[in-house]
Amino acid sequence: MTDRYILVTGGAGYIGSHTVIELINNGYKVVIVDNLSNSSYDAVARIEFIVNQHVPFYDIDLRNGDELDKVFKKYDIHGVIHFAALKAVGESTKIPLKYYENNVGGTMSLLEVCSANDVKTIVFSSSATVYGDVTRFGPTKYIPIPETCPTDPTNPYGKTKFVIEQILKDIHTSDNAWQVAILRYFNPIGAHPSGLLGEDPLGIPNNLLPYLAQVAIGRRETLSIFGDDYDSTDGTPIRDYIHVVDLAKGHIAALNYLKKLNDKGLYREWNLGTGKGSTVFQVYKAFCKAVGRELPYKVVGRRQGDVLNLTAKPDRAQQELQWKAELTVEDACRDLWRWTTENPFGFELQDYKWQEFDGLQNRLHTVQNKDLQVTFCNRGALIQDIKVGEQHIVCGFDNAKEYTLETNPYFGTTVGRYANRIKNGEFEIDGTKFQLTQNDGSNTLHAGNNGFDKQNFFGPVVKQKNGKFTLEFKVVDADGTDGFPGTLEAIVKYTIDSLSIEIEYEAKSLDDKPTVVNLTNHSYFNLSGNGTIDGTHIKSSVDQLLELDGAKLPTGNIISKTIPSTISPEVILDDCFVVDKDANAIDTRSKALQTLVEATHPDSNVKIVVSSTEPAFQFYTGDGVNCSQFGKRSGFCVEPSRFVDAVHSDNHKGQAVLKKGDVYGAKIKYEFR
Amino acid sequence: MTDRYILVTGGAGYIGSHTVIELINNGYKVVIVDNLSNSSYDAVARIEFIVNQHVPFYDIDLRNGDELDKVFKKYDIHGVIHFAALKAVGESTKIPLKYYENNVGGTMSLLEVCSANDVKTIVFSSSATVYGDVTRFGPTKYIPIPETCPTDPTNPYGKTKFVIEQILKDIHTSDNAWQVAILRYFNPIGAHPSGLLGEDPLGIPNNLLPYLAQVAIGRRETLSIFGDDYDSTDGTPIRDYIHVVDLAKGHIAALNYLKKLNDKGLYREWNLGTGKGSTVFQVYKAFCKAVGRELPYKVVGRRQGDVLNLTAKPDRAQQELQWKAELTVEDACRDLWRWTTENPFGFELQDYKWQEFDGLQNRLHTVQNKDLQVTFCNRGALIQDIKVGEQHIVCGFDNAKEYTLETNPYFGTTVGRYANRIKNGEFEIDGTKFQLTQNDGSNTLHAGNNGFDKQNFFGPVVKQKNGKFTLEFKVVDADGTDGFPGTLEAIVKYTIDSLSIEIEYEAKSLDDKPTVVNLTNHSYFNLSGNGTIDGTHIKSSVDQLLELDGAKLPTGNIISKTIPSTISPEVILDDCFVVDKDANAIDTRSKALQTLVEATHPDSNVKIVVSSTEPAFQFYTGDGVNCSQFGKRSGFCVEPSRFVDAVHSDNHKGQAVLKKGDVYGAKIKYEFR
Repeated sequence: MTDRYILVTGGAGYIGSHTVIELINNGYKVVIVDNLSNSSYDAVARIEFIVNQHVPFYDIDLRNGDELDKVFKKYDIHGVIHFAALKAVGESTKIPLKYYENNVGGTMSLLEVCSANDVKTIVFSSSATVYGDVTRFGPTKYIPIPETCPTDPTNPYGKTKFVIEQILKDIHTSDNAWQVAILRYFNPIGAHPSGLLGEDPLGIPNNLLPYLAQVAIGRRETLSIFGDDYDSTDGTPIRDYIHVVDLAKGHIAALNYLKKLNDKGLYREWNLGTGKGSTVFQVYKAFCKAVGRELPYKVVGRRQGDVLNLTAKPDRAQQELQWKAELTVEDACRDLWRWTTENPFGFELQDYKWQEFDGLQNRLHTVQNKDLQVTFCNRGALIQDIKVGEQHIVCGFDNAKEYTLETNPYFGTTVGRYANRIKNGEFEIDGTKFQLTQNDGSNTLHAGNNGFDKQNFFGPVVKQKNGKFTLEFKVVDADGTDGFPGTLEAIVKYTIDSLSIEIEYEAKSLDDKPTVVNLTNHSYFNLSGNGTIDGTHIKSSVDQLLELDGAKLPTGNIISKTIPSTISPEVILDDCFVVDKDANAIDTRSKALQTLVEATHPDSNVKIVVSSTEPAFQFYTGDGVNCSQFGKRSGFCVEPSRFVDAVHSDNHKGQAVLKKGDVYGAKIKYEFR
Repeated sequence: MTDRYILVTGGAGYIGSHTVIELINNGYKVVIVDNLSNSSYDAVARIEFIVNQHVPFYDIDLRNGDELDKVFKKYDIHGVIHFAALKAVGESTKIPLKYYENNVGGTMSLLEVCSANDVKTIVFSSSATVYGDVTRFGPTKYIPIPETCPTDPTNPYGKTKFVIEQILKDIHTSDNAWQVAILRYFNPIGAHPSGLLGEDPLGIPNNLLPYLAQVAIGRRETLSIFGDDYDSTDGTPIRDYIHVVDLAKGHIAALNYLKKLNDKGLYREWNLGTGKGSTVFQVYKAFCKAVGRELPYKVVGRRQGDVLNLTAKPDRAQQELQWKAELTVEDACRDLWRWTTENPFGFELQDYKWQEFDGLQNRLHTVQNKDLQVTFCNRGALIQDIKVGEQHIVCGFDNAKEYTLETNPYFGTTVGRYANRIKNGEFEIDGTKFQLTQNDGSNTLHAGNNGFDKQNFFGPVVKQKNGKFTLEFKVVDADGTDGFPGTLEAIVKYTIDSLSIEIEYEAKSLDDKPTVVNLTNHSYFNLSGNGTIDGTHIKSSVDQLLELDGAKLPTGNIISKTIPSTISPEVILDDCFVVDKDANAIDTRSKALQTLVEATHPDSNVKIVVSSTEPAFQFYTGDGVNCSQFGKRSGFCVEPSRFVDAVHSDNHKGQAVLKKGDVYGAKIKYEFR
């Protein structure tokens, strides 16, 4: 099973995205198909961020059978979990044909492609809506609701789910090799505990908790409670609320159940609910508690079609699938509130836009914060552009291809896992010697041939809070890449304020193997606007230099030197200035940011101030640049980092050797005044 | 309403075709859309033959929304009657997805196009199958079945009908401008009383009467009766059989009902049944009576899913639609038997093939009867090719375009409504003078500029019986065409035996206006195979000639002359030989066929014998031929007909003047020995 894929339709949606995570956590390989009509690719980016792996994604409408078939041909698909559907009950009564076309039409197309590719295992995302008003049989006969309760959906949305169940049932009857698991959801609530995924309803939320969350975050004024004169303890209707993570796990249980059947076919329905009903008031109170304050509400008249009680009888799933809900309404409220505070507008951020640069794995991400516009790219989590007012002040390429050429002088990239040189491309930790790729004569420069600059980072997780944007990128550098030991997870977090970019690096070994780390950002600044840095004024109070030999490796001496106050053509630098000659810590983030360089130019009213928590920085006048429209001295670099070749310095090794349990950390800040 | 079209999906099918006829009979304009997946274009050709008018037809699968939309854009569509569906219950259990895709998918696409074109009136062909097993409520509660009986279809076919009802209902709820009439059919039987249309099931018939008909015609051995131990008078189950013509009329009633609502919306179901149940044995006996003998049957076990009684309560249709079934099971059996004997293999004939020549209105029809292969064309109901053994013996074009050129010397065509010349292009009937198009100097030749040779005939109705093929073509020549009075309906019936073609002409005025008629066939024979008729031997005992003047008009004299026994280059003829100088009848068909000409050629072993019931024939050596690959004297013609310009001959006017109530008739026979 683990070598074959589960295709998840609607995998970028609310329940779909949570299920993808559970699938991967349970060893399944996943390919996602979603037309993003009601979801965001950002959910997929965040899934990858959470699960630390690439998840193939295809933006395909299921009704496009030809495109869908290509996915089935490309991957060895074992089975399908079919979420993709329009799902708003109210909307379905207004545009029923769209609901039938999308939900039923999409499913027919999917099943046709499944059939053509001999994929006969499907878990279908159905809904308790198919039961309709179960009180038509009297107030208690079918409460809690068992799977044997007769179906009679009362709205087009529910009917589409019912029709699809029927189609699947008929297909199984016609060919009993089909394994069909129908999962009828009760009321999914909550969000992923990471705070990275949750429900992101378009327009006015139809459901209690999303609405309440928007009241709490200030997007809506008052919750309306539809009737408090029902025959419940507090007069409000009773529903069966289930945490979305529990629900997601139900799909794994169903898949595992089907797996145990081997090739035996099946058509069977299971309720996914908790079996425990909660009133609207109870849920309201739980959420208020999570938020920490009373939220405004008003009681209005009953809503047409609402009934007293819709609680699942989940016994069948418990007995057969060995699954039951384990999280509480309180858990869900806590997770929802975390999701809401972290992402008050869901995935939809004003002033953030992305576009494909080289496929979805390498996108350009542009944020605009007042006068500052910054564009990032997944490759190397690099800074492609910084625009202050109308002035572009860093070097970057307009197309993805140029970043891959040998002539690219690390424009804007994150350099890692080990920036600058390592002598002879080798080092020792705890008596074990490691041989690296030697890509700079006999030495190793910027981590060899497969450094961070060559890798597409996961994410970014983009958030907007308190007037700032944050973009978090993540890379997982495999054990043994270019000879480096240990699987290293590195997070690059950019915080974009109105006139500054702060970069925070955090890295840790995922397999507890010690390794070495030295990260920096390799932006080339240019204030002149005319293709050369000459004429730039520099102010720097750092006056010590790590003396380098002809191979640009430390001699062991620290000598006095400052950067000249004007970069004239004769000022040629590629030198490591020392901020703190005694530094020996792996995580510098607790230190105060120290100003390293201030740069101005007579032709610009922008002043660049680079500060960091790092013990050193390389200052480079870009004399080796020779690519595309960028020539020699197109930009200068200020690369805060550890000492060059710190791994071979007894006094500074602690800067760069990441021991078991340690976390590497550093901060850099670019300010523009 | 009459200026707008009713679009009929599935209009080439069993119920669809009958409904199209009723629509046209009731003044509706119709456009048919059918993908012919389970029907035949021949049904459309026969519809046109029956209703005497062109019915626009489009071979489109409803799921091809783009093509369908073009039809909606081309015609001003008022409403839709939606028949198109797969309909075999048994098959639906085997390939359910195909049923959902075709029926539900097709309907969704249709409704999308309707909606986009603001067409909101639809009559939907549903089925009593949606009720499922009504005895689940007890043996009598819902017998007869009212529209209020709860639905619960038990097979995929029935479910597709049910789902479509639901979609239509939801659409009407979302937009109550929609007028939706759901017609739930009981058991349609019978055929069109013309014998031209009926049920043409592919494979083994699922239903009682089509099966029984195939037993009667010898295609199946024995009828199986599934159970005779039900609680009915004779032990067999009771069903509500309704004549397909009654059923078709129900659609007109529904359309008229919707029309009376003006713009008010509606969603409503009506049962279309007789309200009278018949047992299997009763129907069996009625059909045996129609056939005139006992047909073999055997009683076998009950069929799964069958129930005792499924009889409609048709009161709602009667009260609201003012419709009720008027024909009996006996009527249906009679009409079915007529359809069956006339068309033992339905529309599917071995050794008959058609292809488009210039669209569907002008097809080529080829029949093969042993050594004789003949190809006809709708244009002029012409003979395009006669192949005896391996020899082609008439002149004809390979492409439709050449038939339309001025240079086409009437190759193979039916000449009419008036063959040969009319002096000065004018004549008088009962004191009224008619002026015709003068297209031959001051005279009129072959009916002017819009003769039969320029018109696409309806049909053909192709049948195969007793070793012979018949192809009937029909044209309706409008009153006033080229100045001729009266709407003339002319039928050209070809009977192709193994070595002969008999042509029968029948024409009558549809508006009781007297007119003139003279029909013949203008085939150019050639036995030499080398492009000239020279060297052909002719044997003819006809020795009188209608003397013609320089304008090829009669002088009034009849002189002695025979055709030379060998056609040598100096034999140049375009003369009217007289068979019966006293003839004055408008219908010659009761006369014995008289041999006119026998033709042979030293290079051929085929002998052509032309005989007819006509009083004269034109013999033409083709000296005016000059077109495409055919030159002068490429073929010779023997054109049995009335006297040239008979309308101006006091003694022979009766040959050509069709008086009120008269029928024109003639026969020609080509034999090949």
